[in-house]
Amino acid sequence: MTQQAFQDYYPDYFSHCYGCGRLNEHGLQIKSYWDGDETVATYTPRPYHIAVPGYVYGGLIASLIDCHGTGTAAAAAYRAAGREMDTEPPLRFLTASLHVDYLRPTPLGVPLEIRASVKEIKGRKVVVSATLSAQGEVCAQGEVIAVQVPEHMLPGLRGEGEQDQRQDG
Amino acid sequence: MTQQAFQDYYPDYFSHCYGCGRLNEHGLQIKSYWDGDETVATYTPRPYHIAVPGYVYGGLIASLIDCHGTGTAAAAAYRAAGREMDTEPPLRFLTASLHVDYLRPTPLGVPLEIRASVKEIKGRKVVVSATLSAQGEVCAQGEVIAVQVPEHMLPGLRGEGEQDQRQDG
Repeated sequence: MTQQAFQDYYPDYFSHCYGCGRLNEHGLQIKSYWDGDETVATYTPRPYHIAVPGYVYGGLIASLIDCHGTGTAAAAAYRAAGREMDTEPPLRFLTASLHVDYLRPTPLGVPLEIRASVKEIKGRKVVVSATLSAQGEVCAQGEVIAVQVPEHMLPGLRGEGEQDQRQDG
Repeated sequence: MTQQAFQDYYPDYFSHCYGCGRLNEHGLQIKSYWDGDETVATYTPRPYHIAVPGYVYGGLIASLIDCHGTGTAAAAAYRAAGREMDTEPPLRFLTASLHVDYLRPTPLGVPLEIRASVKEIKGRKVVVSATLSAQGEVCAQGEVIAVQVPEHMLPGLRGEGEQDQRQDG
């Protein structure tokens, strides 16, 4: 795909996330894209992302749905506002709730496709539905309720983040 | 605590889980214990388990609730059957659904306490409620619906698992 991933538009402060931050070298670094009115991300679990031998760990599946869901919420909010994702102020979302139904065991060793669509945008809240598939078969479905980080918190959070990073580093 | 953790009773086949398997050197290796009628696990996230600077990644929180939930389901099933956890056949549970409400940002750098209780045991299904707290404050609450792996699947799964492990190794 020639599009830039949603996550590659995030300001540095929001790019440390273990699931989707481009600056987190230990993390999953998932990348989400538009595909018409849906969004899609692909991730191939590592051999140690195991539940029982041969199958993917459910916590990883939840993580993929979570990060692809908040990324989708951000992209949809920009689209609804008629804005490009690299314009200020940044529209970023945090997860208020996450629900995952595990429909069948997810095979390990193949790419997983996470697809999402926006079920509702209402004020600062975006509800995202997602599926996770392996080899064309839906293995899990989920819903993310994402809430926009208030603009007035962004500079405060940024300052706090820089302080915390110094403590970590 | 002088108890042995639930996860340390799991047969080897069930001990590769990224969240709680004692044999997964890359994983979280959480340990769950009885505390009266509740269960408890403690986990200190690593610095890279970050959402935004200073706060814990939501996918990790979901993972901790998931694995502590299925561990609690197993322990409760043994207790309900009046059996010790090291008796055969093993009672093991998989997650059918996972729900997490993120109530407030979870601070990074301190131990997290995951507490769970059994809401319902009905047939092969156990519903577990859980909270995740930092410094005495509940940051997330969740529910895990866990379903027992059928006994007749255990030998088949074990065989399949050994084959898959050879492929991985």
